[in-house]
This record gives sequence, structure tokens and C-alpha cells, in this order.
Amino acid sequence: MDSLTSQKCVACKADAPKVTADELVELIKEIPDWKPITEESMLRLRRVFEFQDYSSAVQFTNKVADLAEQEDHHPAILLEWGKVEVTWWTHKILGLHMNDFIAAAKTDLIFNQ
Amino acid sequence: MDSLTSQKCVACKADAPKVTADELVELIKEIPDWKPITEESMLRLRRVFEFQDYSSAVQFTNKVADLAEQEDHHPAILLEWGKVEVTWWTHKILGLHMNDFIAAAKTDLIFNQ
Repeated sequence: MDSLTSQKCVACKADAPKVTADELVELIKEIPDWKPITEESMLRLRRVFEFQDYSSAVQFTNKVADLAEQEDHHPAILLEWGKVEVTWWTHKILGLHMNDFIAAAKTDLIFNQ
Repeated sequence: MDSLTSQKCVACKADAPKVTADELVELIKEIPDWKPITEESMLRLRRVFEFQDYSSAVQFTNKVADLAEQEDHHPAILLEWGKVEVTWWTHKILGLHMNDFIAAAKTDLIFNQ
């Protein structure tokens, strides 16, 4: 995962390149717990993280929110009892940017710490 | 809203009564910004709260999480940039319990503070 987690999200413009299907196939190998899903016609990366109690889920939510501010890239974080579902995508390009893979890999790092 | 916010969620068993349609019509008047929605065949209460920045949305998320622990009743909290969507329902009875209206009213109170 070093290759993704050592990178930082870059400012993303509307004409920035979407990740191609070939790139997606390669990149997803580095974050195998994430699923590419399509919602509202936009490709996104989603992973559900499970927790034994609510406070651990809340703490994880806050750490991912801190990451979002550091990277200036903000996911959807769905907090419920015992689980947190994180979804990364890039609204500006209506799909997946390299930033989303970097952010997903860093989310895994937070979970595994 | 006093009548709802002055109450506390009670321990809820699987045979606890669902809120009836008549009760729903009356109770929703006390929390007019909440919409009854059906998802996965379960009636739920949902409201989207908007914020000018991410940190305010994160702070609100944490306050609602604190409320959840106090009431021992846990909603779905969807945190994105500039908004937090809160959904209350009672999984044990597969629908809406009086607890959900109490918790929704208290969520409004947190937002308005």
C-alpha cells in the first residue's frame, strides 16, 4: 500500500482525468477491501468497517474526518451502531480520481493502526 | 417541542408498539422538519442538517452521537461536506417507536443550540 499512502490528494479540477478501467483494475489490488459501486451515475469506492462498540465507531469517524480535512477531500461517512461505511468519489469529475484511491488507502491505514 | 424533548427513550422490546398512522400525523407536527420515509420496508424519520463548513458538521455529528449514547438509541448519521443526514428508526420493531420522535426532537434541540 506504500505507493498509495505515501501520496497526497491533489487539487482536482473539473477537467482532471478520471481513473480508467485499466487503472481501476490495478489500483483496486492495493485496496482489496474496497468495492467500486455506482450511485447516481457516479463510480465510487465503498468499504464498511465494523466495530465492537459505538464509541470505537465514533472515534474512527473522527479520524476519517481529520484525514478529509488534511487531504481537502471529503467522503461520505455513514455512522451506525457497530459500523462505519466510508464512500470516496470526486464530485467535480463525477467519478473516481486518483485522489480517491489515495484516500481509501489512508482510511485503511487509520483502521489498521 | 417540550412534550417530546422532556421525555427519555425507554428500553424497547420486539413486541413494543409501533407508532400508529394517527399518532404519526400528530407527532410529526412537533418535528415538522423531519420526513417519514420507508427504506428496507421500515418506516424511518429523516432530516438533513446543513452547515457552512466541515468542522461544524463534524461537531454536530459528535453531539448527535453523544445523544445516541445517552438515550441508548443509535441513528444512522451520514456526514458529508456541508451536511449531516440523520435517520432515526427502531430496528427491533422494524419501524417507528415513540423513542424515535423523542430522539428526533432532541436532535433538533442540538442543532438549534
